[in-house]
This record gives sequence, C-alpha cells and structure tokens, in this order.
Amino acid sequence: MLRVTVVGAAGYIGGELLRLLLGHPEVEVVGAVSSRLPGKRVDGVHPNLRSVTELTFCSAEDVPESDAVFLALPHRAVMEQIEHWRGRAGLVVDLTGDFRLADPEVFRDYYGTEHTAPHLLPAFVPGLPELHRKRLRDADLVSVPGCMATAAVLALHPLVTHDLLDREQGVQVDARTGSSGSGATAGPANLHAERSGAMRVFAPTRHRHEAEIAQHLGVRAAMTATGVEAVRGVQTLCHATLRPGVDAATVRRAFREQYTAEPFVRVVAHQRGTHRYPDPKILLGSNFCDVGFALDEDTGRLTVIGALDNLVKGGAGNAVQCLNIRSGLPENLGLTFPGLHPL
Amino acid sequence: MLRVTVVGAAGYIGGELLRLLLGHPEVEVVGAVSSRLPGKRVDGVHPNLRSVTELTFCSAEDVPESDAVFLALPHRAVMEQIEHWRGRAGLVVDLTGDFRLADPEVFRDYYGTEHTAPHLLPAFVPGLPELHRKRLRDADLVSVPGCMATAAVLALHPLVTHDLLDREQGVQVDARTGSSGSGATAGPANLHAERSGAMRVFAPTRHRHEAEIAQHLGVRAAMTATGVEAVRGVQTLCHATLRPGVDAATVRRAFREQYTAEPFVRVVAHQRGTHRYPDPKILLGSNFCDVGFALDEDTGRLTVIGALDNLVKGGAGNAVQCLNIRSGLPENLGLTFPGLHPL
Amino acid sequence: MLRVTVVGAAGYIGGELLRLLLGHPEVEVVGAVSSRLPGKRVDGVHPNLRSVTELTFCSAEDVPESDAVFLALPHRAVMEQIEHWRGRAGLVVDLTGDFRLADPEVFRDYYGTEHTAPHLLPAFVPGLPELHRKRLRDADLVSVPGCMATAAVLALHPLVTHDLLDREQGVQVDARTGSSGSGATAGPANLHAERSGAMRVFAPTRHRHEAEIAQHLGVRAAMTATGVEAVRGVQTLCHATLRPGVDAATVRRAFREQYTAEPFVRVVAHQRGTHRYPDPKILLGSNFCDVGFALDEDTGRLTVIGALDNLVKGGAGNAVQCLNIRSGLPENLGLTFPGLHPL
Amino acid sequence: MLRVTVVGAAGYIGGELLRLLLGHPEVEVVGAVSSRLPGKRVDGVHPNLRSVTELTFCSAEDVPESDAVFLALPHRAVMEQIEHWRGRAGLVVDLTGDFRLADPEVFRDYYGTEHTAPHLLPAFVPGLPELHRKRLRDADLVSVPGCMATAAVLALHPLVTHDLLDREQGVQVDARTGSSGSGATAGPANLHAERSGAMRVFAPTRHRHEAEIAQHLGVRAAMTATGVEAVRGVQTLCHATLRPGVDAATVRRAFREQYTAEPFVRVVAHQRGTHRYPDPKILLGSNFCDVGFALDEDTGRLTVIGALDNLVKGGAGNAVQCLNIRSGLPENLGLTFPGLHPL
Repeated sequence: MLRVTVVGAAGYIGGELLRLLLGHPEVEVVGAVSSRLPGKRVDGVHPNLRSVTELTFCSAEDVPESDAVFLALPHRAVMEQIEHWRGRAGLVVDLTGDFRLADPEVFRDYYGTEHTAPHLLPAFVPGLPELHRKRLRDADLVSVPGCMATAAVLALHPLVTHDLLDREQGVQVDARTGSSGSGATAGPANLHAERSGAMRVFAPTRHRHEAEIAQHLGVRAAMTATGVEAVRGVQTLCHATLRPGVDAATVRRAFREQYTAEPFVRVVAHQRGTHRYPDPKILLGSNFCDVGFALDEDTGRLTVIGALDNLVKGGAGNAVQCLNIRSGLPENLGLTFPGLHPL
Repeated sequence: MLRVTVVGAAGYIGGELLRLLLGHPEVEVVGAVSSRLPGKRVDGVHPNLRSVTELTFCSAEDVPESDAVFLALPHRAVMEQIEHWRGRAGLVVDLTGDFRLADPEVFRDYYGTEHTAPHLLPAFVPGLPELHRKRLRDADLVSVPGCMATAAVLALHPLVTHDLLDREQGVQVDARTGSSGSGATAGPANLHAERSGAMRVFAPTRHRHEAEIAQHLGVRAAMTATGVEAVRGVQTLCHATLRPGVDAATVRRAFREQYTAEPFVRVVAHQRGTHRYPDPKILLGSNFCDVGFALDEDTGRLTVIGALDNLVKGGAGNAVQCLNIRSGLPENLGLTFPGLHPL
Repeated sequence: MLRVTVVGAAGYIGGELLRLLLGHPEVEVVGAVSSRLPGKRVDGVHPNLRSVTELTFCSAEDVPESDAVFLALPHRAVMEQIEHWRGRAGLVVDLTGDFRLADPEVFRDYYGTEHTAPHLLPAFVPGLPELHRKRLRDADLVSVPGCMATAAVLALHPLVTHDLLDREQGVQVDARTGSSGSGATAGPANLHAERSGAMRVFAPTRHRHEAEIAQHLGVRAAMTATGVEAVRGVQTLCHATLRPGVDAATVRRAFREQYTAEPFVRVVAHQRGTHRYPDPKILLGSNFCDVGFALDEDTGRLTVIGALDNLVKGGAGNAVQCLNIRSGLPENLGLTFPGLHPL
Repeated sequence: MLRVTVVGAAGYIGGELLRLLLGHPEVEVVGAVSSRLPGKRVDGVHPNLRSVTELTFCSAEDVPESDAVFLALPHRAVMEQIEHWRGRAGLVVDLTGDFRLADPEVFRDYYGTEHTAPHLLPAFVPGLPELHRKRLRDADLVSVPGCMATAAVLALHPLVTHDLLDREQGVQVDARTGSSGSGATAGPANLHAERSGAMRVFAPTRHRHEAEIAQHLGVRAAMTATGVEAVRGVQTLCHATLRPGVDAATVRRAFREQYTAEPFVRVVAHQRGTHRYPDPKILLGSNFCDVGFALDEDTGRLTVIGALDNLVKGGAGNAVQCLNIRSGLPENLGLTFPGLHPL
C-alpha cells in the first residue's frame, strides 16, 4: 500500500483527490491537510464522503511520512513550500500553476510575479501521461497541467506529432468552463445568482493556460476562457489551419494512431446522432478526455475539440494516473468510473 | 411626478425596485442609497440598467426629500432606522421582516430578538393589496410581506374568505425558492458550485414566513422551505382539508370570485397541457401571482399552489403596486411586463 | 459469474443497469434488449459507455439463457410479457409499476387499467432490501419500487417500526424530481426549453407512488409530485405527526437503530453547515439514500426528508443490490461509487 | 394603429412577436396564424400571455388584411409562400433564412437546396437597423438576420467601417447558444435530460450564419456553434487581427463612434467587476445587443464579443424595431424592457 497525503484537502481539487485515493485499492490516505480546518471531519466539507471515511483534517506539521504528497494549494504557495514537502515524500505531485511553465520569464509574464524557486523548474516532469509517460515512471516531482491546457493539448497533440499543422498560423483556443474551476472560496463573482446561467468571458485574451499550450505544442497559441453554466466540465474549441493537401482521412488516422492505446483518451467525431463531438456532460466524475475534430476541406480550417472534467482528468484524476505510472501500478487503477448519462 | 428614494439600493430587491421605478411613468427616482457604495454608479452592480440610468448611489444622509421611501435593508435595520425615514417621506414602504408580524411576542419567537419599536407595529398596513387595498389607499407606513408568505396567503385566501377550510386541521405549506431570496452577499452556502442543482431544505420547520401565513389567514400553519435550482421564483404547495361536503366546483367558484377583478392574480388550474398549475418559470420579471388547486375528492384533501417572482410580486413589484394604490394611480402602472416564455 | 440480461436497455434505467452491471466484478452482461434498436451499438445511446463496452442491442427473441433478467420497460408491458421472461431466467427483476401494488383493485384505481396477471402478484417480493432483505435471499420474482416511493418509505420507515407516529393523521409527502424520471422519449412537455428551470406540479394529488407508500408503511398517505430543475435526483419531504410525548431524541435513536447497519442508508440531520439535510445533489450516481428529520417540538409535527438518485437507489442500483442479496454476494458489490461533490 | 399579423405564431419566435406586439402602443394584432392549432387559444402555448390576450390562432386563409405580416416559419416555407403574403400586407418581415443570403449560389451551398424565388432576393432589405436603417425606412420586404449572425456582425461592424481589420486574416467566430434557437418542436436532441448542462458542438464548421457574417462584413468568416446550458441567449466570440499599428484606444474610439447614437447597442468592455464583457444573462427579454472587445497588444489579436437574446434582438425584437423604422415611429416603441438582474 502506498501511503499518501493530500495538502489543500478542503478545496475542490483536494476533495476529488480524497474521493479517488480513498477508493484506490493500493493507496492508504495518511494525511489530509487543511490549514483552515485542522481537527474537523473531512466529510463535513466533502459530504459525498460520508460513511466512506472517518478522516479528519490535520495541519501541515502533523503530516506523517508519505510515499506521495499531492499539493492542491493556491497558486504561489507551492513554490514557497516546495522544499518542505520534498523532504516528506518520495513523490511530490503539484496541482497548482507554480511549476507548469519551464521558463521563469514566461512565468513572470503570465503570473505577474517572480518565480521563487526557478532552479527546480527543470526537475518537474509535466503530469501529462499521454506526452510524458516514460519520464513519469521515475519522476520525483510532477506538475499537473491546467485543466483547460490539458483539454487543448490533448486535442491538438496528434496534429503536432504527425506534422499536419500549418504552424505559421498558430492556434486559437476557445475554452468554456464550469464554476468549480475557480475554487471553493466564496466571492461576489461566484455567487449563485450571479454565476448561474452566465456566459462570462473572464479571460478574453492571454489566459494563463495559453502559455502551457504553447509550451507543450511548440506553436503560437491564443486563448480565451468563458465561464458557462456548469459546475464541472471544460471544453476547448481549437481553431487551426492544416498544411496544404492534408485531408480529413489523414487527420483521422493521426488521431487514431495517437490515442488507440491510451486508456483515457477517446476519439469522438461522428457524422450523426446527438453525441457527435466531445462534451463534458457525459464525462463528469470520469478520467476520460474526449477529443474530436471537423475539417472544412474548402479552406483547410480545422476545428479540434477537447472535453474533460476539470477536477478529474483536468486535475485530481490526472494526478492519480501519474501516481499509478510512477508506482508501477496498472494505469487505470482507481480511475475506472465511466461517467453518467444522462446527468 | 412622485419623488421616490430606494434605501438598500445595491441589493437584489433594491435593484428590482430601481428597475421598476425607473420605468414607471409617474415616478422620478431621486435617491438610491447604499452605505457600501456611495458615489458609485448604479449600473455597476445592476448591469441591466446600463443605458437606462446614469444614477449613482448616495449615502443615507444625502437623501433628498421624497414622496416615498422604500426600505430594502437587512432584517432588524429598519426597526432601528424607522424614525429617521418617517421624517423624510410621506410614505414609507418597508420590505424587510421588521414590521410584518403584528404581535411583538410572535416576532421575538420567530426572529430571536426583541422588537425595538413595538409601538409602531399597529401603524403598519400589510402591503398586500388583495387583502388590504382599502387601508393601503391612505397608509403612511406599509410593510410588504415575505415572498413565500405572499404566495401561500394568496393561494389560500379564497378558502378562508369563503369559509371552505376545516380550520382545525391547519395548513401545511411546502415552499421552494430560488437563490436570489437570500440576497446579494456572498458566502459558502450560496457559492455557485454548492448551490447549483441543490434541493436544500434550509428550513424543515418554523420558517419565519410561517408566522405571517398564520397571521393573515387566521389558521394554524406549518411551513418548510427548500432552495431549488433557480435564481428567481417561489412556489408554495399548500395542503389543507376542506369542510365536509365542499366539492371542487365550490372551490373553483371561490377562486374565480376572489380574483376575477384582481389585476395581478390569475387562477391556473387546468386538466391538460404542460402548464396546468402555477409555475414561477413563466412569471419571472412579472408582477403576477398565479394560484391554482387540485382536490382529492375521496379524502377532501386539497392541494393549493401559489407561484410568483420573489423579487417582483414577492417584493419590489408588490411595493410599487402599493405605491400606485396609495397615490391614486392606476394599479398596474409600471408593472405590465408579462413574463417570458420560454426562459 | 452471473449471466444477466437487461430488457429495455436503451432507456435511462436500462442504461444505468448496463453501467452498473458492466462494472460489476461478478456479472457478465449477456443481453441488452431493445426492440427499437436491435443491432445498434449500446454506446450509441449511452455515450458514457464508450470504450467500456462493444455490446450491441439484441431483440427479445435473441436473448441467451440468463441467471437474471432485469425488465426496464414501459408500465403495462411487463405484466403481459412476464411468462415469457420467467421461462428465461432464474431471477426476474421488474423495474416497472406492474407488480408493485399487491392488491389488484388498488392497481386498477391508480393505473386506470385491469391487472392482467393478478395471480402472480403474491409471488413478487418488493425490491427494497431495507424492508425485505430476508425474503429477497431466495426470491425468484422481484419488483423494485418507484423512485419517489423508495425515498419516502425509507425516510418514514423507522417511525413505523418504532411506533412513533400518530397513525390517525396519515402522512403527507411532497416529492420533487428531475427530468430523467419521465424517460428517454421526447415530447412537448420535456423539451429542454419548456422543462428547464420549471417547478412543474405534475401530480398535485394521487401520484401512483402514493399507493406504494401507503402499502409499505401501513398508513394513509397523500402525495404530490413536482418536477424541478435537475436531470437526476429525487427528494421527498414527508409531513407526519408524532404520538404525544415522543421527543427528538427518541426519533433520532429510532433512525440510528434502523439504519446503523444498512450499507446504503445514511442519517443526515445536522444543526449547522451547508449540507444539513438530505439533498440528491451529492448522491448522483451513487446507491445511497440519505434520510433525515426535524421536529417542531411545540406541535409534534415532524418533517422527514429522503433523497436519492432516481436512476440508482431509485431504480437500477436498488435492483443490483437485490441481485447481490439473492446471489449471496457482498451487498455493495459493484455499487461503491460515492457520488461527486461539487457537481 | 398598425394592423399586424404573425404567421407561425405558435413557435418560440412567433410567441415573442406576440408578446412584443401585444404590448406595443401603436399596434393591433389582427391575426396569429398557426396551421397546427387553428381555433385554439394563444395563451395555451404561450402561458406568459394569460390575461394579456384572449386571441385564438387562425389559419393562413383567415388572415385579415394587415399593414404588416411577420413570417416566423420553418426554413424553406417562406420562399414558397412569399407571393401569397406579399399580396396581403404592405410590409412583409421574414424571420427565416430564406431571404438572408443575397446570392442564390451561396444559399444553395449553405442550405443544400435550390432557391425557389431568387428573383426576389434583391428586393429584400436586411433587417439590421444598425447597418441598413435608411433603406428600411421604405422597405416592403425585410429579411431579419440569424441570431448568431446579428451578434457577430454588430460586434465586428465598427472594425470594418473604420477599416481597422487585417482583412486577409478573415474572422473566426465561436458562437454559443441556448436551446430555444432550435425551436418548439420536440426531438431526441432537445430532450431536457440530454440537452441540460450540455456543451454540444452542433456545427464545428460552416454554420449557416457564417455566410451571413461574410456577406454583411465583406470578409472571409469561419464559424462554429455550440449549444450551452441556457434557454435563451447567444454569445459570439470573434477573433480578428488588426492592421499593424492599430491600438486599443483606436478600437475603443471606433466602437464609441459607431454605437453612441444606437438605441439598442451598448459597448461593454470594462477592466474590473463581474460584468466586464457582453453576457446574454442580463439581456434576456430585452432588445439590446451588447458588444465589447479586448486586445492583446503584443500580437495584434483582437477578441470581439457580442451578446443578445436570440428571440428578441436576434429575432422578434429586431423585427419590431424594423417595423418601427418603416412606420416612422420612435425606434424603441414597445421595446423598452431593460432585462433582469439577477436571473
């Protein structure tokens, strides 16, 4: 059994880590850290865990030795605490933005602050099994990408590996997201009466995940982000231009080749029916990322679509998948929930 | 033109008062008081009023003389400020709970605090035109009832006036409400991710509006309140027992007689179709309260249903209707928006 | 391995049965019957099962011999096909209303039609483990109760077994339900634009589940049913009167005693916090039924609340729990998904 | 008083036309045509019009002479009936796609069928007051643009008139829409359980409104369309590239100049607050189209945003605005409802 600790366990990503890890057959959760609620029952803030666990939150000082620590903290907190946690566990998985961008100047540009531990940036392996599985097998430091970045990168990745893109054009990504992505802290903007039914463009340009997309794909990326009516779920519509002469069959083949052996990426691109393209509605609670595409053959313009549950494949599930890889376990252990329909 | 002031103008009831009063042909809004946002533009917090008004919030001290003042404040604030406002306007319309209950002991029982101006309780006329139209014509102090109380009282009222109820049995009211009823202040319970899709029983017994229902109808009342997925809208299901021998035709006649001349109460009780009973979905933005009923003739048990928009007929609209009555204006002036379908 | 068949597999209950049975470690799904879609892929209508199964629908004639057959058909179809299915499987689990009511006259009264197989009514065991576990161990015919009936019966059951109710008063049940309960067939009433945001009283009196509640509890029951904004989820608010002298501590003890050993019923009745009473929001996808209560000690009026996912504990999950009991398997096998929060 | 007739009056656009026209002080509705429901009450399908009108539907043959006829029919029906309606009214306003595209070859390309009245295409004036007000003053045939096209065209129009676009790059439009846009006819795809909470890419390339955008702006346009959780509301995110050297101040000035005198277009582009960019949430029921923009000055990439209520400014309201212009009435007559907040 792996002994694992979740730090930031009272938040939404923290709660999802607990749900997955408590149901994982090879894991024992030994610590659930919340600086705000030490001593309180975990199921007080995560009511879906009632009767599943009697665990209480502890403070950072009381964390027992662990095989792995998951850090689900506010941005900036991890880069300040990283040395502390490295000493406590063989594997540290960071779910914040602190170690996602390899270049500290890009970090400063997008986060508006200096990186305080730039020397560690090269040591972090991106927690994206579909791109970095091999390196993850013996990574000690893992940085899980942003939820919208994951959806966009997985959607566009086959085009890059198969060299089908007109790279000069860059990519344009329109992301839609549910409200859980902004966390469990109440404020005027995420009050139910304000957020319900909204189509809120909260990042019309230069969302932080834009930099991750560019980094992972090696192309210029522009991204917008809009909050739509949903609690969970991310969908990215990516606009790209194909190299001259690339047709739909070639694109389809690239997607199939790329993902046929992947346990958690499905290609969804149908001509008919209600569920023709990736939609997070059927993915909630699951670790799947669905990807699909449609080509306007007259113009060579390609629309590529990615969808996932931001708290699972866009966060906690992806992190557990990395843990499985690093620990030599079956990759889908504890991650087999298929999603609900209808929901 | 009537010169009116809205106090608590940055809240949801305050915003709705502004929307209605700014569109009212015989009203000039001379003050919009917000203690939190003096000097800020009104359309900054009420974005639906962009291009409708250039008004800014002012502080309570800067209110000009007014013909009428509407108080949309937190509970308890009005009973402390009432002398201040009485001196500033010929008509004071209170939209809080402070002067709804005629008996200060009942007030203490339901609000958990002593009333600080009990001598004024008899001077307030309930802002419920369908029951108190005549008294409202020359009222100087008006107390608008609670949104759920209004829906329940209007639904049950014809049974009382026509003496059809088995009064011994009392009435049981099951109320459902949207999130705007709890106001514009953010907190953990009304965070979108928590409140969205909820069926949250926040008052399984003894909701405060229960006391208003009992007072207006003169029967024993028990009430529950549940938050359901909606921003606006209240629906009350009321269970009552008829006196022996009362049949459905008699009930129907009572409803028709009671409400045939009322501008804002419609009887909705159909045997077929999608819209057979009152549903707030089609009432949002309108000042209608729809009421309907169904009788189980075998048992004499009657289900009576009321529906309204909690911010309009359950608050701001009802208040404007009272202003019209008091001012000798056509009762529906400024209140003719019929609601949207579908929405 | 148990060989099982799902009949009516293209519907919502059918899809949920497939989701649960395909993930069940001791079950092999050998048939998925759809009279409408034979030969089509199951994941075409249940997109959450993509990559989970390659199964195609078959017709009723092509069903292989099975250990158990689940019938998720329209009401009335089962009583006509029952002899056919009894010959095909050792265990028949009916999820329709056809064999829920023991008395054929009550059936006629509530369903408006004669029962065509009344001789079989006594042979069916109610698929409600919390009330009939022992009989389910060797039942060959099981009838799973209605979703709203299950929530109400489990909520009220401890009061009956502990004789705390003033039975003369009967019980009043107000049920709220999501749209999936009305099935996968499109019509004007469940068009998204019409159903979205509705509070639609579709049964103001005499909903069919009322008769089940009365039968299981042995008390007079009156029930209303309202569709609220949700796809999944049922909540029942039950109003009852306690016998004189019964206090809250006694009620609490009755609930604890009744359900402490039950794997899928949790008592939720807290004084504080956001999640004080049962709410289906946190139960979606899970087999839990949460029950809770609040007492107005002044009047002896008790509000009892039940919540569940209508497609799981209110249907498919309950059926699988019965299969586990009948087959001598651990009762929670294949049913351990805890629900999601937030969602 | 203008005598007007609505054809297709039982649909959602038809119902919205009735709501607006019944409340219009200079209009008398003389006919509400429904081929499906002649003789039935209008408020049976449009329950928000209860107590507002006693009107019944009539058949096409029974339409009295009218000053104006509004055609809210399925696509293709108008081009076949157009001669009939031209003979019945001085002004015909078509709300379908039949006469939106000036070039019959483009029509064939996007609608997959031959145009049957191409000779009339030049006679139709686009029902877009902001671009064609002058021609609308004496138009006899008006074709109201598609809802998503209207949002995109109004958002991008100032850039074209002020020549700020790098026209070589074309524009990319990402449109999100509520479910009412697909009409009042039930089918599997718009069943509540399927459509609720969806992010459904129903047109990943080549939505029909794409051709309208290109036609009105004179630039190459690519468009995607996604159904999101909403009944009403359209939002378009438009991506464009500015000519070198154009800065944010220039763009802002172009928007202000273009729309400062427009009664129904507001420029919304704020640095702070919850409501920084156009969001249909606050526009429901109103005739406003809000437009805004954000510029990434490093790259010259501009995100332009449009939002409206698809049934009002995207359909019925725009049509009434055209009627006002054509009839020499104040342009906002009958169209002053400001929208609700919160909703």
